[in-house]
Amino acid sequence: MALPDSYVFYQTYVEERLATILDELPVGEALRRAAGYSLMAGGKRIRPVLLLTMYSSLTKRLTCCTCPTASDMDHVDPNPLHAACALEMVHTYSLIHDDLPAMDDDDLRRGRPTLHRVAGEAMAIMAGDALLTTSSLVLAQRYGRHPELATTLTALLSHAALRMVEGQVMDTIPATDKPRTVEYLGTLVDNKTGALLTAALSMAGAIAHSGATTLGHLDDLGRYLGQLFQITDDILDVTGEAGRLGKTPGKDAAQEKLTFVTLLGLQGARERASKTRDAALSILPKLDIDPRFFLGLINFIHDRSY
Amino acid sequence: MALPDSYVFYQTYVEERLATILDELPVGEALRRAAGYSLMAGGKRIRPVLLLTMYSSLTKRLTCCTCPTASDMDHVDPNPLHAACALEMVHTYSLIHDDLPAMDDDDLRRGRPTLHRVAGEAMAIMAGDALLTTSSLVLAQRYGRHPELATTLTALLSHAALRMVEGQVMDTIPATDKPRTVEYLGTLVDNKTGALLTAALSMAGAIAHSGATTLGHLDDLGRYLGQLFQITDDILDVTGEAGRLGKTPGKDAAQEKLTFVTLLGLQGARERASKTRDAALSILPKLDIDPRFFLGLINFIHDRSY
Repeated sequence: MALPDSYVFYQTYVEERLATILDELPVGEALRRAAGYSLMAGGKRIRPVLLLTMYSSLTKRLTCCTCPTASDMDHVDPNPLHAACALEMVHTYSLIHDDLPAMDDDDLRRGRPTLHRVAGEAMAIMAGDALLTTSSLVLAQRYGRHPELATTLTALLSHAALRMVEGQVMDTIPATDKPRTVEYLGTLVDNKTGALLTAALSMAGAIAHSGATTLGHLDDLGRYLGQLFQITDDILDVTGEAGRLGKTPGKDAAQEKLTFVTLLGLQGARERASKTRDAALSILPKLDIDPRFFLGLINFIHDRSY
Repeated sequence: MALPDSYVFYQTYVEERLATILDELPVGEALRRAAGYSLMAGGKRIRPVLLLTMYSSLTKRLTCCTCPTASDMDHVDPNPLHAACALEMVHTYSLIHDDLPAMDDDDLRRGRPTLHRVAGEAMAIMAGDALLTTSSLVLAQRYGRHPELATTLTALLSHAALRMVEGQVMDTIPATDKPRTVEYLGTLVDNKTGALLTAALSMAGAIAHSGATTLGHLDDLGRYLGQLFQITDDILDVTGEAGRLGKTPGKDAAQEKLTFVTLLGLQGARERASKTRDAALSILPKLDIDPRFFLGLINFIHDRSY
């Protein structure tokens, strides 16, 4: 199954705006180059695309997302693209720090050597710090005409980013010390993977002025997407190819990591993936949106091979 | 020369509020303990004290700083204490990351083993990330009733934190590749040390609704304080004692670091410290404040032995 058509459409806008943010960053060339190496390495951009699509779906309009070169100062309505980029910067910083030798010690990311392999550990630590910092700066500066929204978005993104660190801490506990239960792994995944996906949807909801009921559904959808994404990631670690994955497969089993596959077996993990897909799909009718993009995305994550 | 009397007064309020923020952090005990190890390790708290004192001096009032246990929601005026704590969290994260083996590789900080020595590198990286993230969360949550101020403070703090990373990048360039000039070192120090001190004063100015002229003077004062602080730090690396310093002296010379002492010699550095002190003192009459605290502080930094 291919990605929904509009995916590439939004992905391109995010790429363009991220490049602009990087160009305008008030830092020297060495730091800009290091941050850019990871930030502009492609990737699925799933979180920003999710934010932009949900915003358009909730507001039934595309216009604000289709003029990324104009400053948000020109708009009466805030442009969700800045929030999408801030979110992607938080995600990228987390990948850079997670890949460090002291953490997951990964050599490959998105098909290329990890940042610390090409620029050194010190620069990788600092580039991650700079991207995390810039995410707050972007929200504060780009939503300056909408300070209440800026404050809400900063709170949502910071809270999610903090949960993500907590998830990484849970993940870093030696495998032998972790409770080997689906419940523990579920909480870990809700923090490590679900928090930022939930942030994508709840930030979209905040920009679209959604009410509490909708925001609750968006939270649920984000959590299911996180679970689905991680279960398929665990499955791909067993079944995937290094070239397509862009990272080294087979590491989870080698490190005896706590994953849905090591807990439930390959077949059990596949069944859980299907159940989680169905749970995610069941949210869509509760939202007043055209569900097609999300139907396609949920099925794509479920069926993906990279 | 002793610290000004009111220093300890403000320091205590900051300690108490930081402990509360730590208690309320939505993370598990392992991460809370690691973050708390560094955040509650004492230290001079110079940045938050500077912020609180400048706020009181500019507004001619003490009340908002003297009720840290009350929520800022109870106040018509925003409480500068939250900004002071956010600033200290950014400073603490930077110390944790700077101390890492891949960076300065320091074993001692504030008289105790560095965080990565007691909790491991992975936890030190994550605790730093969590503190940086929490600083944005605190500003967004605690100034929720003043969203324009929250946005301004987030922009000021993020911008300063980004400059600080840039300063650290400049500092990390191998000593042999750095221009060995006072100009280069001055820019490095403005970024690495001056940015957060300037943020302390400009955040105070923002909370106090200061005008552009005052904010300009506060910027200058912050920059001079940063220079003075770093020059005396460089001098203490040669003349200080490990027990009082709380870190290992003599490392700068051993690593052939670019410092004011290695550039100008001990006597030259001392002369530069005195000139910088005088420049800082010359700002005070331009501000409509009782200058006594700042007179004392500037002289204290100039004369300090730890």
